Amino acid sequence: MGARRRSCGADPYAGVLARNPGGRIPLLEIEGGVHLPESNAILAYLADGTHLLPGDRLPRAQVLQWLFFEQYSHEPNIAVARYIIRYLGRPQTHEAALQAKIAPGYAALAVMETHLSGRAFFVGGRYTIADIALYAYTHVAHEGGFDLGRFPAVTGWLERVGRQPGHVAMP
Amino acid sequence: MGARRRSCGADPYAGVLARNPGGRIPLLEIEGGVHLPESNAILAYLADGTHLLPGDRLPRAQVLQWLFFEQYSHEPNIAVARYIIRYLGRPQTHEAALQAKIAPGYAALAVMETHLSGRAFFVGGRYTIADIALYAYTHVAHEGGFDLGRFPAVTGWLERVGRQPGHVAMP
Repeated sequence: MGARRRSCGADPYAGVLARNPGGRIPLLEIEGGVHLPESNAILAYLADGTHLLPGDRLPRAQVLQWLFFEQYSHEPNIAVARYIIRYLGRPQTHEAALQAKIAPGYAALAVMETHLSGRAFFVGGRYTIADIALYAYTHVAHEGGFDLGRFPAVTGWLERVGRQPGHVAMP
Repeated sequence: MGARRRSCGADPYAGVLARNPGGRIPLLEIEGGVHLPESNAILAYLADGTHLLPGDRLPRAQVLQWLFFEQYSHEPNIAVARYIIRYLGRPQTHEAALQAKIAPGYAALAVMETHLSGRAFFVGGRYTIADIALYAYTHVAHEGGFDLGRFPAVTGWLERVGRQPGHVAMP
């Protein structure tokens, strides 16, 4: 969600801040005290050289296309709406912010619906980190007030992702 | 800027919408009627295999780290503030939105300042597409009301980018 990536200023986060000046999570610790922030950069690092991130130039760029879409058009609306409702308890102080997320959140879901109509996965007919990145907050979008029933191609894709070998559902 | 990537619903954009359901620009036309949206995915596609995008796993992921930072933390604040001031003429209807961009915009510049203190460029001591992506709206951040004088490392980096071979200043 958006809020857990926001700056952390309190003492408990001093260790995180020392390793990551942006102060956001997730943060991947790599050997030698090297730390990598940004969830989708972490996905790309971990998937590099595997079937989850194509090696060819065009499909690789198309995977990145959807990772950027996730960060710019999807997460700031769908994940943040969910955060306001589920974790903040939908306080009146955030109602205007919540309302502002609805139309662009549905617009992002509509872009996904159009793309997934007739496609099994986002890029090249194969399961990649584009699917992993977009699954994260799409499969809980209803907790942000979004009605996924309007998006049958998205719903079918969520089911396919959930059936991937090694998929572990959140508790 | 943010606004030029927003959905376009009017007739003049029908051709763009046919090629890109997201309706945003820029949009790269590749051979064979293939189109690639998302500015930073386009940068990665064009730079793939060149010195502007490292081939090794960690520096490659670090370049992506800064591209995601640009899309999530930088552009939505700095470019959109500039859009409201320069292109909308700072109307009263957008004043609250503009004010909301100031603190997170400065926070993004502060993250850059910290990282660039003692570094010539963002990743691996070399000029990469991380620098290109972040140069775009940083070098015009003053048009969004941001005082770059507070950020000497950023200012020095802007000068280094401007001196790169082949750099063409905007008119």
